[in-house]
Amino acid sequence: MARGAVFLGSGGGGDPYVGELYLRQQLAEGRKAKVVRASELADDAFVISIAGVGAPTVLVEHLVSTNTLMRLLEASQKFYGRRVDALISAEIGGANSMFPLALGARSGLPVVDGDGMGRAFPHLEMTTFSVYGVRCCPSLLMDDSGNVVQVDTVTDRIAEDVVRSICASLGSMIYGSFYPMSGRQVKELAVHDTISHTLEIGRRIRRARESQTDPIRDLLDFLDAPGEERHARELFNGRIVDVRHETRDGWHWGVALINSGRGDEAEFSIEIQNEYLVAREHGRTVTVVPDLIAVLDAESAEPLTAEMLSYGQRVSVIGYSAAPIMRRAESLAVFGPRMFGIDEDFRGVEVLVPAGAGRRAP
Amino acid sequence: MARGAVFLGSGGGGDPYVGELYLRQQLAEGRKAKVVRASELADDAFVISIAGVGAPTVLVEHLVSTNTLMRLLEASQKFYGRRVDALISAEIGGANSMFPLALGARSGLPVVDGDGMGRAFPHLEMTTFSVYGVRCCPSLLMDDSGNVVQVDTVTDRIAEDVVRSICASLGSMIYGSFYPMSGRQVKELAVHDTISHTLEIGRRIRRARESQTDPIRDLLDFLDAPGEERHARELFNGRIVDVRHETRDGWHWGVALINSGRGDEAEFSIEIQNEYLVAREHGRTVTVVPDLIAVLDAESAEPLTAEMLSYGQRVSVIGYSAAPIMRRAESLAVFGPRMFGIDEDFRGVEVLVPAGAGRRAP
Repeated sequence: MARGAVFLGSGGGGDPYVGELYLRQQLAEGRKAKVVRASELADDAFVISIAGVGAPTVLVEHLVSTNTLMRLLEASQKFYGRRVDALISAEIGGANSMFPLALGARSGLPVVDGDGMGRAFPHLEMTTFSVYGVRCCPSLLMDDSGNVVQVDTVTDRIAEDVVRSICASLGSMIYGSFYPMSGRQVKELAVHDTISHTLEIGRRIRRARESQTDPIRDLLDFLDAPGEERHARELFNGRIVDVRHETRDGWHWGVALINSGRGDEAEFSIEIQNEYLVAREHGRTVTVVPDLIAVLDAESAEPLTAEMLSYGQRVSVIGYSAAPIMRRAESLAVFGPRMFGIDEDFRGVEVLVPAGAGRRAP
Repeated sequence: MARGAVFLGSGGGGDPYVGELYLRQQLAEGRKAKVVRASELADDAFVISIAGVGAPTVLVEHLVSTNTLMRLLEASQKFYGRRVDALISAEIGGANSMFPLALGARSGLPVVDGDGMGRAFPHLEMTTFSVYGVRCCPSLLMDDSGNVVQVDTVTDRIAEDVVRSICASLGSMIYGSFYPMSGRQVKELAVHDTISHTLEIGRRIRRARESQTDPIRDLLDFLDAPGEERHARELFNGRIVDVRHETRDGWHWGVALINSGRGDEAEFSIEIQNEYLVAREHGRTVTVVPDLIAVLDAESAEPLTAEMLSYGQRVSVIGYSAAPIMRRAESLAVFGPRMFGIDEDFRGVEVLVPAGAGRRAP
């Protein structure tokens, strides 16, 4: 699952390693997370998102405390004045795929198979929940030391600024409950079955490696399912010839340049703002946000976060369609290309790279 | 009162002009603030501080909204689960002397004649309330746009960091309720009668100007009252020969150099960190925090905030003792010289400058 969560993280979302450790510990203690489909929820069930907020680099160094998550759950039930019936991840890509499952295993609460984006994004307002009317506020924040802050802002964009600044003042890692909503809202607004999706992606990669077949081809076979409105393309494969990283205000910016090995000139580029946002071949866009870009090690198909990219790596770059709800006009107005300073309209990967035009046909 | 509040601000606390405007408006509408002595409070009365938080320079440009203060009061009563019986200022120096009075006039709630320091300080934990066991949390914060944040941290020092960062993310000016406490605690911990004190200082300066007597001598006559444990000295008078200002992280740092007119060499210096913190003559400390330093225009005795100092001004510098509760060891551990990076023990102005040794004897 952790491997699949990095794949769907589109380069961002933080390393799920910490959450993985914690889940393993729960399993070792005989606990399991109960995963349910959204359709199994009662319409009036009360569902919240549990998430860690912090700079991804800090997240990696920070051991999540079981007790903090349990305290957060208890305080949230008091705060919202309701028993919580189920947990859901806001962001399946990266670390925040793991915290609801960890807390679900510990508390016995079911965890919904789905999330609010089917990928990773850097802001609280960048979820389908927020776009279609579920506020991230009121929100309860907590850290390991017992500091508690409650946030109720006029917009989720303002909440993002406030939560981020609180996080910085409390030492860069806090946990929060967000997006209090009904079972009916989860059914309508979530990107569905994304926990299952991470598991299946991870399983495919592992199996292909074990059977010594081409793991990337195998993955493309699974991901590209036009009948289910899913489209995947291998955009490029080659060697990283330059990668520039920069941290500004706690965010990760950069660009990775890749060529196919004929000469030094970069043929392919990926722009990074925490996540991989746009991939271009000879300057022509081949995948753009909110569609996903995954960079895999060319041999092992190990998905690589933006922080893991380095000079000389041989990689395969995959473009993968976001869920239909993520591509609607209302969604694009919050997390389409222009919201990240990319001056172009969104076009789906299946339009930018027609079937059969990818490097390695599925 | 505004003039007296600048005097007690010891250079900081923000310009009370905005609050003054608002109080005038309340008076023009026929409302008055009812000021009560702490001794008139019932032991179990419920008292809170209402304060603006923001960079002083922003404060000046920001028109306080009556409605925000009223909304804050209503939400605070809900938040604390009690009717508020009286308001108190946390900081009588500068702008935060005015907001409780403005809200008191508007709401009809009495305002306690006193505050938590008898001067101005830059941090939430730097009050007698906080030093002696009244927490600034839980605290309710609000801005003019309707954003609401509740803060409950483990220490008031952490609350300071969190509140300051929330302030920055909400556009640099917020209002909050702090230090929920009982009437008994107000009686024991407040610096008393400081509203009366601002009024009397302001009145003295105005009267002396009108009667064309020496306003600074007149002020010293009033302030220096050893029987009431009050000590005032004129430390220096001369011309400002250099003043350096710098803004770091929203704080105001600087130093003002003054000489008596014989040569260019600076004889007297005042170090600034928002407030005037230490005054030295030829390098020898003559007044140090938490004792107060006031810089007055040499002719009119108009008190000058640190932002108002400029090259060439003729000024009189007065050292004034802090209230006895502010000079106890527990207090000095929070806002004594070393807490501002000044490597010396606190000594009172009456020790540093014995009676009769000031420039202009009272």
